[in-house]
Amino acid sequence: MNNKQNVLIIGAGLCGSLLALRLGQRGFNVSVYEKRPDLRKVEISAGRSINLAFSDRGYKAIKLVGLEKQVKQLCIPMHGRMIHDAHGNTFQSNYSGRPHEFINSISRGDLNALLLNEAEKHENVSIYFDQACQSVDFEKTTALFKDYKSQDVFVEDADIIIGTDGAGSVLRKSYYLAKKFLFSFSQNYLTHGYKELCILSKENGDFRLHKNALHIWPRGSFMLIALPNLDGSFTVTLFLSYDEGQYNFNNLTKEAVVLEFFKNEFPDALALMPNLLDDFFKNPTAPLGTIKCAPWHYKGNTLLMGDAAHAIVPFYGQGMNASFEDVIEFDKVLDMKLKNWEEICKTYARGRKKDTDAIADLAIDNFHEMKDHVANPIFQEKRKLEMALEKAFPNAYVSKYSMVTFNEDMGYREAMLKGRAQDKAILNLLHSGRIQLQDDLKRTLEIINQETQAILADNEIAGFKST
Amino acid sequence: MNNKQNVLIIGAGLCGSLLALRLGQRGFNVSVYEKRPDLRKVEISAGRSINLAFSDRGYKAIKLVGLEKQVKQLCIPMHGRMIHDAHGNTFQSNYSGRPHEFINSISRGDLNALLLNEAEKHENVSIYFDQACQSVDFEKTTALFKDYKSQDVFVEDADIIIGTDGAGSVLRKSYYLAKKFLFSFSQNYLTHGYKELCILSKENGDFRLHKNALHIWPRGSFMLIALPNLDGSFTVTLFLSYDEGQYNFNNLTKEAVVLEFFKNEFPDALALMPNLLDDFFKNPTAPLGTIKCAPWHYKGNTLLMGDAAHAIVPFYGQGMNASFEDVIEFDKVLDMKLKNWEEICKTYARGRKKDTDAIADLAIDNFHEMKDHVANPIFQEKRKLEMALEKAFPNAYVSKYSMVTFNEDMGYREAMLKGRAQDKAILNLLHSGRIQLQDDLKRTLEIINQETQAILADNEIAGFKST
Repeated sequence: MNNKQNVLIIGAGLCGSLLALRLGQRGFNVSVYEKRPDLRKVEISAGRSINLAFSDRGYKAIKLVGLEKQVKQLCIPMHGRMIHDAHGNTFQSNYSGRPHEFINSISRGDLNALLLNEAEKHENVSIYFDQACQSVDFEKTTALFKDYKSQDVFVEDADIIIGTDGAGSVLRKSYYLAKKFLFSFSQNYLTHGYKELCILSKENGDFRLHKNALHIWPRGSFMLIALPNLDGSFTVTLFLSYDEGQYNFNNLTKEAVVLEFFKNEFPDALALMPNLLDDFFKNPTAPLGTIKCAPWHYKGNTLLMGDAAHAIVPFYGQGMNASFEDVIEFDKVLDMKLKNWEEICKTYARGRKKDTDAIADLAIDNFHEMKDHVANPIFQEKRKLEMALEKAFPNAYVSKYSMVTFNEDMGYREAMLKGRAQDKAILNLLHSGRIQLQDDLKRTLEIINQETQAILADNEIAGFKST
Repeated sequence: MNNKQNVLIIGAGLCGSLLALRLGQRGFNVSVYEKRPDLRKVEISAGRSINLAFSDRGYKAIKLVGLEKQVKQLCIPMHGRMIHDAHGNTFQSNYSGRPHEFINSISRGDLNALLLNEAEKHENVSIYFDQACQSVDFEKTTALFKDYKSQDVFVEDADIIIGTDGAGSVLRKSYYLAKKFLFSFSQNYLTHGYKELCILSKENGDFRLHKNALHIWPRGSFMLIALPNLDGSFTVTLFLSYDEGQYNFNNLTKEAVVLEFFKNEFPDALALMPNLLDDFFKNPTAPLGTIKCAPWHYKGNTLLMGDAAHAIVPFYGQGMNASFEDVIEFDKVLDMKLKNWEEICKTYARGRKKDTDAIADLAIDNFHEMKDHVANPIFQEKRKLEMALEKAFPNAYVSKYSMVTFNEDMGYREAMLKGRAQDKAILNLLHSGRIQLQDDLKRTLEIINQETQAILADNEIAGFKST
């Protein structure tokens, strides 16, 4: 198979534009069709979060395409979670005991624009906007598009069509509706939705909260978070049930009730948000869904990547990172010089799916951890111990969070299995008093490792695929 | 809410006909629309298994409607699994150490006919055949039907519409396609499909294999099973991958290859199946899917029950039993005298879904146990020990299989959590040598109970919802 193959990509979001850039670098003839207008020319943000967490897996992909310097300029480091309690007290819980390990807040729009600019520098890459995919004929390897400006409808074909068209993927829907093969598929919504709000910068452009942290107001069954933007503002997100509890999205319909809710629960945040009511009633409430499916590809004709294949909830900050990692893994398979697209797609999906399934499950775990557990004494004790261990033994101890976020050479599934066993070991050891924060750290690490190994071995014998 | 409400049931399969009977007994005006012809008048079996495993949860529902005597006459007790190894040797592994606990083979058609006959005895119950539901308007509580004989299309309304229309439910599809609310949904296929075959009776009507067992030929990655029928025949089912392994459904396309496969793998079964090739090429290969969804109801207008809400794979023999248990649980909620159908549906779904999710997962576990683990020495040792414990301590020891199958007053979810912890305890204790088959049983039971409790407690502390 030569590089002169025609690749049609549906969707020029983060995954699609990175993929276009990489395939362009490899010499393929790449055409990208995006249903939205060009985000470099008009402001669009409807339904998509404004900033995102960017960490080591994403960074590895950015290095692959040689953009690390440009991307670094867009990043605001966040060293830990800044937790705001109900009385307005704060304390910071770092993401790692190793000082070089942190996550970053980055603007979705800026990053996407950078990737589009770089992709378009390749004359073998063409990107078309306002072109909405209507359906894909995966047996003929053709896609039907509608030009939103001219209203024309047209068919494009290619050697392979890759759908990076997000959680609402038209290619995936074509798989589902055609019923030509057994298509496993799930869409699972949390009971909670989210709404974006904003803390504006001070008049002089300064940040109104500590800049280098991900701020969380955990309240058990709901929470508020805030991530910094380069302009000194914070994008704030409220995660709340649609219909459970005293306050929920269904009953927050009046200004007085919204104010009462924020006064009771988030008084310190409210003080920074004079624009709260405007934002609250202007911005949409959006659902939180997880999508899994299989197979991702149909023969060698079509392939799903990114959110189109595996949309996840945002609570591990891994959505974009996982999609970027897709491009790394796909690129690795291209290096294998397999004989055709079918072999490439099979090999890619076989290696990748277990990892995207794992991060989907981890992200749901973290939903509960963030809104609830971070305010729980035994979880706080565990995090303190983990920070101490990572500081004392930077090469020997790695928390689950660090495995997922900072160990880009360990797959998500391995991180999940090891990390869950280790978390379970630490929580049980702390609870039973067999280890304590003030104990000798070396001895504590040995006990944790033994217990973790015992848990993994027990699971293995019992034939459980995961705990 | 009075009993004179009009209830429209879509589908007169096992769940729909039992539900119609029970609601008829309670005095509701019940109309049932079934797309197939009346199975009491024509022979139909396409795509549906001919006989089924009937056990204590199903029996409890049958007692609720007062049909235990009639149903017993349709039952063939199966006391255990009769395992056939590759050399034709057999050994029996009982389902329980308590002699009164066994499962039954029952004809789907005979049981369905009995339920239809009994339902129709109520003048407030009407059943219409050859009436295919096309779609449901769940906001108006109306359903669109097509009469297959006259080709007429018509709309019916009711106070509530209950979809018992199976794994391919039209009501569920209406929920999914309308996109009027957040509908979580999954369809997951195993890599394996199944095909039904047959061992005919001897000329004198006798059984060609031991009558009172579920026969299994476990072969690691595939298996054959056989359940007895009242006429002396066995319905045989081959579970095999579509495309993996040396032999699979995709490559078993020639008579010689099918014969070779059976000669190599199931020589003793082949000797009893002179009709193998006819059956193999005449009968369809069907997929094995699990369906979960939520919510099951839309306000108080419509409700999914049975396979329409939760289709599962057949490996725990609980598909029909779970659907019958739905009717018991729904009946209990009706006894609460709630104020409207919405409260009834909410209460029913809240209590029931966790249990049907659990049996779906347990059924997949048992797929691996049946095709593979039953032939594994440590699993065999575990089952021997469990039989000895159930015999020696009939009130104090209950295996996971017994909790699921014979303890109809314990929910599936509780059975799953306790049963998985207990299985894990026993396997680990046997593996480490801390318990052995020849040890004092009382002491062994104490150790197992302690270890099981420790596993449950550890899971609880670590915040795991299940192992």
